[in-house]
Amino acid sequence: MPTLRIALSQVNPTVGDLAGNAQLVRTWTRRAADAGAHLVAFPEMMLTGYPVEDLVFRRSFVAASRAALERLAADLAADGLGDLPVVVGYLDADGPPQISSDAEPGHGARNAAALLHRGTVAATYFKHHLPNYGVFDEDRYFVPGDVLTVVRIGGVDVALTICEDLWQAGGPFAAARHAGVGLVVNINGSPYELNKDDIRLPLVRRRAAEAGAAIAYVNMIGGQDELVFEGDSMIVGADGELLTRAPQFVEHLLVHDVALPAAGERPGDDTAIVDGMRVARATVSESLPAPAGPAAVGGMIEPVADEAEVWQALVLGLRDYVNKNRFPSVVLGLSGGIDSAVVAALAVDALGPDRVVGVSLPSQHSSEHSREDAAELAKRTGLDYRIEPIQPMVDTFLANMSLSGVTVENLQARVRGVILMALSNQEGHLVLTTGNKSELAVGYSTLYGDSVGGFNPVKDVWKTLIWRLAKWRNVDAERRGETAPIPENSIGKPPSAELSPGQLDSDTLPDYDVLDPILIGYVDGDLGRDGLVEAGHDPAVVDKVLRMVDTAEYKRRQSAPGTKISIKAFGRDRRLPITNRWREDG
Amino acid sequence: MPTLRIALSQVNPTVGDLAGNAQLVRTWTRRAADAGAHLVAFPEMMLTGYPVEDLVFRRSFVAASRAALERLAADLAADGLGDLPVVVGYLDADGPPQISSDAEPGHGARNAAALLHRGTVAATYFKHHLPNYGVFDEDRYFVPGDVLTVVRIGGVDVALTICEDLWQAGGPFAAARHAGVGLVVNINGSPYELNKDDIRLPLVRRRAAEAGAAIAYVNMIGGQDELVFEGDSMIVGADGELLTRAPQFVEHLLVHDVALPAAGERPGDDTAIVDGMRVARATVSESLPAPAGPAAVGGMIEPVADEAEVWQALVLGLRDYVNKNRFPSVVLGLSGGIDSAVVAALAVDALGPDRVVGVSLPSQHSSEHSREDAAELAKRTGLDYRIEPIQPMVDTFLANMSLSGVTVENLQARVRGVILMALSNQEGHLVLTTGNKSELAVGYSTLYGDSVGGFNPVKDVWKTLIWRLAKWRNVDAERRGETAPIPENSIGKPPSAELSPGQLDSDTLPDYDVLDPILIGYVDGDLGRDGLVEAGHDPAVVDKVLRMVDTAEYKRRQSAPGTKISIKAFGRDRRLPITNRWREDG
Repeated sequence: MPTLRIALSQVNPTVGDLAGNAQLVRTWTRRAADAGAHLVAFPEMMLTGYPVEDLVFRRSFVAASRAALERLAADLAADGLGDLPVVVGYLDADGPPQISSDAEPGHGARNAAALLHRGTVAATYFKHHLPNYGVFDEDRYFVPGDVLTVVRIGGVDVALTICEDLWQAGGPFAAARHAGVGLVVNINGSPYELNKDDIRLPLVRRRAAEAGAAIAYVNMIGGQDELVFEGDSMIVGADGELLTRAPQFVEHLLVHDVALPAAGERPGDDTAIVDGMRVARATVSESLPAPAGPAAVGGMIEPVADEAEVWQALVLGLRDYVNKNRFPSVVLGLSGGIDSAVVAALAVDALGPDRVVGVSLPSQHSSEHSREDAAELAKRTGLDYRIEPIQPMVDTFLANMSLSGVTVENLQARVRGVILMALSNQEGHLVLTTGNKSELAVGYSTLYGDSVGGFNPVKDVWKTLIWRLAKWRNVDAERRGETAPIPENSIGKPPSAELSPGQLDSDTLPDYDVLDPILIGYVDGDLGRDGLVEAGHDPAVVDKVLRMVDTAEYKRRQSAPGTKISIKAFGRDRRLPITNRWREDG
Repeated sequence: MPTLRIALSQVNPTVGDLAGNAQLVRTWTRRAADAGAHLVAFPEMMLTGYPVEDLVFRRSFVAASRAALERLAADLAADGLGDLPVVVGYLDADGPPQISSDAEPGHGARNAAALLHRGTVAATYFKHHLPNYGVFDEDRYFVPGDVLTVVRIGGVDVALTICEDLWQAGGPFAAARHAGVGLVVNINGSPYELNKDDIRLPLVRRRAAEAGAAIAYVNMIGGQDELVFEGDSMIVGADGELLTRAPQFVEHLLVHDVALPAAGERPGDDTAIVDGMRVARATVSESLPAPAGPAAVGGMIEPVADEAEVWQALVLGLRDYVNKNRFPSVVLGLSGGIDSAVVAALAVDALGPDRVVGVSLPSQHSSEHSREDAAELAKRTGLDYRIEPIQPMVDTFLANMSLSGVTVENLQARVRGVILMALSNQEGHLVLTTGNKSELAVGYSTLYGDSVGGFNPVKDVWKTLIWRLAKWRNVDAERRGETAPIPENSIGKPPSAELSPGQLDSDTLPDYDVLDPILIGYVDGDLGRDGLVEAGHDPAVVDKVLRMVDTAEYKRRQSAPGTKISIKAFGRDRRLPITNRWREDG
């Protein structure tokens, strides 16, 4: 039984940065070679980054991806790494690099994997199962492949698969069993969702049983607009045993020795079409020397608390949005409340205090404790703290226009937005928005006011989870002997927008302990009114909440992008018509 | 050869308004019956409106659609209209009305057509070809049907099909030929695109030849968020002859007598599966009396000029966005420039002058002619004209913050945004945004400044087309002996943002005659840098423009929705990653 030393490169590519991503492959292939690996695998669409969305339709981009792949194969050989087989994801298309510009749909783009060896593209595979739900639109972008590529490496037959191929039964994994492979490599751009790691391992085990083969699963990490990729790479034996598992949210080279059946032990039949797929084979090497020195044993990461996982996801999503878009720094308004405190703490964790500007924007309705809590947060985190009173500007608007009621409340929020955008213009900061998912859902925010900003780290975080995150972050700091970043008063006090005298969120909204479960059922669960009432919620509250959600769609569409932690977040995957007369209460 | 009097109800449903849409069906079925029709057809998803987007995932909504259909059948019978077969689009799902809330994808929703007769649902058909390109996401929402429904009406075999079924070869139309039908009814929610009517007729003719049958094509009209539906309903004979064609952009009952082959003249074979479809048959009536009185002859509309077509599309899209969302009125800033003048004229055409508020928002940089041109526009159109000088507010910001350069320019635009939103809050108007597609494409606008607003009628209109529309609208007014709405000076003067002394668009941008063709190639044509240079554009200008477009994606995503006139408009169908290092110039 040959033993292959498998290296999984859990790295962080950047969309569109073909040269930089190719350089990442060269650097990490060198590390894998230094570790004595027989095979190294990189994530889905590694060369282009993922997802590339409508860049797929740009034939210049497809041609650049193909050219970058050829160049990478040559560069790896020139680096002296040509003998190490490298599996890498890239964007391909049928026929010559020039795809027809007027043939849409059916332009023939492929979500592809290549095996690079000795300066050439030794084999390619085109993703078979294309996800078209949630955050995915791959039926729009790609043509599915129907050929399972099996490459003999060190005398082991290795099948190449991509991401969704693992999430659906049949297709490549059924064909892999029929082809008698010893290992299935599955390369991924699999976005983080809360608790997705809990379903990933059982799924990989199921596919190992389906293929009758070990599975090497490699996933990227990093933030890309609203998505964050978590890693969680792993190797599972044919018997379903978890052999090694990488940490979430950090780059990592997972190297592990795996004993695999030699090719021919379970002879494959290549004449049949299995689940619509035929088999194509290539050979890299019929045998390889056994790994030298001590056995390579990858680590084994245990699951962490939900709050820790979400915090890391939000930090990584924010850091990459800022850095990959080359913003020098961020700015946000500090109200003294919990939302802006959590966003500030996230920003300091993501970027360091020197790259975070926090601005207190007090009005005549701002309480003394609000100013104090904002200042206390600034002191604890060390961010760049400013104070910009809004009253002079608000008063000038009021002196020149005849405004009253909620208009005056919104005016204050909009003056704050103008100030933050002016600071952004003047000093180059990205404005962070701090509205949580609960208030976005019900429209409890001012469009072009507190909704102003380029990125919202807590866009997909329910208010009750905001509190849990704040408490967890403080406890975690204390556990590590560090200063808890978030003032206890910001956590404990009743939430208020402070736009009118004595205003509290509870004047307008149900308590968040009541509100959030209804929102979770309606937004994330697609429950209708009757389903929510059956679940035990007060019908009158349900009706009020649903009406608020239904009329807030436009505000949500105008809100800043932010890292998703649920596949059913607002965004692409829960897109309701703005013009829509449907009411759950009839 | 039986003669059927076919009525096509080209009506305007509203998304989510099941009761209102059902009432529309009853009203127009009465009209069709009064005209002696043997068959009346309504558009795709008539009962729910179209597209319903993620309402599909709400099982309460699916159940409501099915219940509304049953109720409609009963109500039509109660109205004394039960003998007239009615084809109507609705939302269905597999199995009982309760679809599983955790089964996604594959929840089993269907884009469906029903034939109602004598108080019952006599037959149903599920759309076979699902569009998943451009503005469409139907692979995400629906399961395709694989049964062609053929109903015998008055002794003629009539096949039911839906929209995209017509746009792809094979499938239902091939099966219809095999089944020997005499007529194919095709019900549509087919969004308007510039010149789509020019390709629609040849397409219908091609399908008539494929099916060997006459085609009755009915399309809805009306605006739905970014989509506008144009009508253009028609009947084409089996020989490809255009028999009658309805006008665009207005509700219309098209009634026409068509001689059709009696069932059995071309016997069908129902045992085979043709292009993956089998045939199911139902019978409504083996014969019907010939139409009484004079023959019904529908009208024949000739194509109009592009400018007239686009103007009507923009007016309808705006009117329905405002009315279906129940806004009493709109407000917009009037700069004296061409964009706001065209938007004001569109708004007055859509809503009447009493529902349009135009606000002059002069600053110290506003020229005398700008104020005069804005006032002149107000006088010509009769809209509600206001003046709100911005200098006091701008000065207060400048006195309290240390701002310079482009920050001061943007500040002025943002103060204008705050004023318009305050008027919206105070008086209930919807704010209209007036940025054209050229400036949106290159980011020549102020985020949260002139981009503020709930709807932008010219979001998808290139600047050069803005000028053409303005000139056309004035000439058309003069032709009708009316006042030309747009001041000649607004059309003729060089464009300027007037945010700094003597500023002109041409300080920053290429001339629009140069800019627009590059943008059209890049945005609508997916041409890369090399393709644009090959097309004859100056490489230096191309590089400058492409860089501007690539960095404007975030602003575009934050912009107001507006009526699409091109399938390749910015929006869902041309969605680029915000975080994206790809540069066409390497």
